[in-house]
Amino acid sequence: MRLAILLSGRGSNFQAIHEAIAARRLPAEIAVVIANRPEAPGLGLARNAGYETHAIDHRLYKTRAEHEDAVIALIDHAEVDFICLAGYMRLLSPPFVRRFQHRIVNIHPSLLPSFPGVDAQAQAVEHGVRISGCTVHLVDQNLDAGPILVQRAVEVRDDDDAESLSARILVEEHIAYVDALIKLGRGAPIVEGRRVIFATRDS
Amino acid sequence: MRLAILLSGRGSNFQAIHEAIAARRLPAEIAVVIANRPEAPGLGLARNAGYETHAIDHRLYKTRAEHEDAVIALIDHAEVDFICLAGYMRLLSPPFVRRFQHRIVNIHPSLLPSFPGVDAQAQAVEHGVRISGCTVHLVDQNLDAGPILVQRAVEVRDDDDAESLSARILVEEHIAYVDALIKLGRGAPIVEGRRVIFATRDS
Repeated sequence: MRLAILLSGRGSNFQAIHEAIAARRLPAEIAVVIANRPEAPGLGLARNAGYETHAIDHRLYKTRAEHEDAVIALIDHAEVDFICLAGYMRLLSPPFVRRFQHRIVNIHPSLLPSFPGVDAQAQAVEHGVRISGCTVHLVDQNLDAGPILVQRAVEVRDDDDAESLSARILVEEHIAYVDALIKLGRGAPIVEGRRVIFATRDS
Repeated sequence: MRLAILLSGRGSNFQAIHEAIAARRLPAEIAVVIANRPEAPGLGLARNAGYETHAIDHRLYKTRAEHEDAVIALIDHAEVDFICLAGYMRLLSPPFVRRFQHRIVNIHPSLLPSFPGVDAQAQAVEHGVRISGCTVHLVDQNLDAGPILVQRAVEVRDDDDAESLSARILVEEHIAYVDALIKLGRGAPIVEGRRVIFATRDS
């Protein structure tokens, strides 16, 4: 299974994937790492780890479509099975999503469908939930709404604020993202309505 | 802590509360059990267990308000601290809810705010979530939306349907409802916005 990673910042989920591959827990290969910001710390980490890396600075392109075309060209060239968003802070256009249908993976720091959008952890704290978590999902045209691959629950404590809750959710994100990729690595999943049925283990 | 129980059917959460009190896990007393259907199996169970029971058949009252007045009279007479809804299939009017503000407890078979309303377990299965659960909450004017007391997570399995998921959630409901009442028994909670802060243990 070949992966493209798209990131904008530190890319801690990229690092979790990298470590799982290095430890042979995840049978996959990171074919290319692409950032939309040359200064993204995750890009430097990827370069140091020996991956093919590209900074495709969205500020240097006149339109969203032109920037996406440059990203798509790199992804096509890398011949990947899945595109993993790891803190990629650009909305993907509907044509981009359609082109890679059921092949773009993202993670969100809540138990979707609760708390989509920005500041999910703060939303959870303000709503007073006792359990939040994270969701790894396939990307579709709607924000934080695609078919769900893996979720992990995290207890919200009485003294939590958005920051402390985020830190505990992040630990589970790394586990969940790797878990989802291990399951996807067994073969293309079947998506029935909103339900995802993973291929059974082939070995 | 004195409790009123309102139910319409088998009242399995009532039975869980009854058993927790009998086992001295929950320091509370069920002062009255009220059903809006004389044929509710939970009412017979309550009678056999020696509780004061009342069937207040809503079909015998001309208006919702008159039916509620009869229920309120019984609750007032019983001098309870909390009203526990245990499968009570009547919407409570805003005056009823205001009269007992932060003193009415209900349970819902999902991790709210996901999947409010009817058939929460079927909604969860259709949405393809990997984790659902149950929520014990205080009742406010909006459906399934009051401040949250306790939540418990339940894994949704690949082969789950609404029925199999409901059965596993129900087990957790019984634990969650008793847990919420134990916490409420320590003293009136503080409700800040949507967050509930339980009184600290007083012993």
